[in-house]
Amino acid sequence: MTTTTLPGARLIAELRPEARNAPESGIVEVMNHGRLKPGLIPLWVGEGDLPTADFIVRAANASLAAGETFYTWQRGVPELRQALADYHAALYGQPFSAERFFVTGSGMQSVQICVRLVAGPGDEIVIPTPAWPNFAAAIGVAGAKAVCVPMDLAEGRFTLDLDKLAAAITPKTRALVINSPANPTGWTATRDEMAALLALSRKHGIWIIADEIYGRFVYDGSPRAASFHDVMDEEDRVLFVQTFSKNWAMTGWRIGWIEAPAAFGQIIENMIQYSTSGSPVFVQRAATAALTEGEPYIAEQIARASEGRRIVSEGLKATNRVSLAAPVGAFYQFFTVDGRSDSRALAIELVDNANVGLAPGTAFGPGGETGLRLCFARKSSDLVEAVARLQGALAQS
Amino acid sequence: MTTTTLPGARLIAELRPEARNAPESGIVEVMNHGRLKPGLIPLWVGEGDLPTADFIVRAANASLAAGETFYTWQRGVPELRQALADYHAALYGQPFSAERFFVTGSGMQSVQICVRLVAGPGDEIVIPTPAWPNFAAAIGVAGAKAVCVPMDLAEGRFTLDLDKLAAAITPKTRALVINSPANPTGWTATRDEMAALLALSRKHGIWIIADEIYGRFVYDGSPRAASFHDVMDEEDRVLFVQTFSKNWAMTGWRIGWIEAPAAFGQIIENMIQYSTSGSPVFVQRAATAALTEGEPYIAEQIARASEGRRIVSEGLKATNRVSLAAPVGAFYQFFTVDGRSDSRALAIELVDNANVGLAPGTAFGPGGETGLRLCFARKSSDLVEAVARLQGALAQS
Repeated sequence: MTTTTLPGARLIAELRPEARNAPESGIVEVMNHGRLKPGLIPLWVGEGDLPTADFIVRAANASLAAGETFYTWQRGVPELRQALADYHAALYGQPFSAERFFVTGSGMQSVQICVRLVAGPGDEIVIPTPAWPNFAAAIGVAGAKAVCVPMDLAEGRFTLDLDKLAAAITPKTRALVINSPANPTGWTATRDEMAALLALSRKHGIWIIADEIYGRFVYDGSPRAASFHDVMDEEDRVLFVQTFSKNWAMTGWRIGWIEAPAAFGQIIENMIQYSTSGSPVFVQRAATAALTEGEPYIAEQIARASEGRRIVSEGLKATNRVSLAAPVGAFYQFFTVDGRSDSRALAIELVDNANVGLAPGTAFGPGGETGLRLCFARKSSDLVEAVARLQGALAQS
Repeated sequence: MTTTTLPGARLIAELRPEARNAPESGIVEVMNHGRLKPGLIPLWVGEGDLPTADFIVRAANASLAAGETFYTWQRGVPELRQALADYHAALYGQPFSAERFFVTGSGMQSVQICVRLVAGPGDEIVIPTPAWPNFAAAIGVAGAKAVCVPMDLAEGRFTLDLDKLAAAITPKTRALVINSPANPTGWTATRDEMAALLALSRKHGIWIIADEIYGRFVYDGSPRAASFHDVMDEEDRVLFVQTFSKNWAMTGWRIGWIEAPAAFGQIIENMIQYSTSGSPVFVQRAATAALTEGEPYIAEQIARASEGRRIVSEGLKATNRVSLAAPVGAFYQFFTVDGRSDSRALAIELVDNANVGLAPGTAFGPGGETGLRLCFARKSSDLVEAVARLQGALAQS
């Protein structure tokens, strides 16, 4: 049944354009093509294959058993805000006040709220692309305009041309979205690049919406990627949008956080109040356990992703049909296939012929249209099999 | 520490006015005054005193144990959408398609999304007041204008003057918010009033955002209040904003739903995707259990509220200092105190002198400034004690 024949179809035209024109996910289109295929190896979503660890689940169950099922603090329970401050202090080697942290109902909600804090109708936000499509979509739903700056791609590696980024800034620009390590490209800003980006923010008085959710997933042995925390002052215009989804395999829990100037506390509380009115206490207890007991788990996850990265990058290179560089950070391999520029068609073909689910580059905006994204946060045996299937299919395509 | 001295205070002026100007809750101000008082009986929030029932918690535990911790359908899991359709069919005596139901991360998120579907900058939404303040606030955050129409108050009972409501409709009006049974007034539309409101929607081509979350809480022995479902067609401009919070004592779970024309499916999916990206599966399993096994529980809750209503209305009347009528629906007693028109000051005074927490009418917009709201969804012994304390304090005030 198509939408136009459903009850209410005549009313669609009366809805607000910001809502009506929000794009459908380009990944979901390919997923819908392959969702029910037996034996398909799904590497199209930014999600691992492991359910959430027991020590996290137990904290939620204990909270439920204790009857923590009532309304709670809109900014998050104090214990979780303090745990976030402690986690940041350990990771970045500097003190953090719990007053800088605001619990949200997902990294996505963090983005939604931060976009609305700084931009609305008439405003622009600049995004290096290819990028997670939900940034541009959330900006559009807020009535602002996403301005995409395609990154440069050479020999499988993306680089961000800071002059090109600076040239996209206009008097209407209110913010830059900086995702490092980046989904889907694996691009990871150096400390010098972070400093240069911050200098742009200071020069133009514009915000940085910093998505550093993959900051733990780097493969050179260092404990984390460079961060705006390494170069900024507390008074800089940086809003961090964060999630528990990736580090702790909690995609299905819908919990994240915003890190922002403490002075924004009441404003962010109000924005949370008028969008979802807080997060469940039992989910917050699980998140607190993740922060306070989760370091060994994260270490395992990173080791697993590192092995996945090796399997995938070596296996795909062996086809002699692809152009790629193993990513510096995050847990995606982005690659192009020689002679194949229509990634949507190719992703559908690989569902049919390799029984492997990949995300088409078309889903990520300008600059990535010809590539494919593969999530390697998965057990090695699946990845070995997926690579073998892709080798076979690409040899015949 | 005041906000102006916190790091980042100088940046507040750069934030969007829709965010910066979102109001702080007028209830929370009084709560902050009394939050830590030993022995205070808190009747200021729309929440009962019972934790969520075991049969609901167990469904969440089982889902977590089964590893349901991954991303899921943006519109809600199919089983819950079907359970919603079945629940509605039983309650309203007519068939419902599961395609009309969209799971959200709270009734508040349902309001946020429905407001954004129909209104933005330049648009107006009309609200009879006093009303739940989050309606007007969410409209403001969306960049639209809330137009309040004060209800008439006589002998403690509120009535909605439909001519006054109609007179507030302008070419900019995009929707009416109709909350029946109403928080905080207890006003409950008759079927004829529902039909008249729907006629206004049809005549002007404007939407009704229908909040019928208290529809089960009526005290005349009938199974539910009148509903727009009793008078509308599937093609009418009615969007229902709903929650699991009240019927099933699940305030802390943050789960609700939207009921809308099935043709809006992809648009609502996108709005969910770009605000919170779905609700946890284990929370959805709990909600499914609530719908399918919860009728005896709801019957108990209503019986309990009915007793609470009697205790409170009779006890307050006995003071000979108040003006009130026992509410037709919902679980709040709204009342005014003779000679006292400053409800904010009175609410703070009653925290200090009666150790009872009430919500000041000033929190609910025009028309309710002089009254107080008392939530009676609570065990009888608490309510008996609260009424005794209020009697004592009012005798001396």
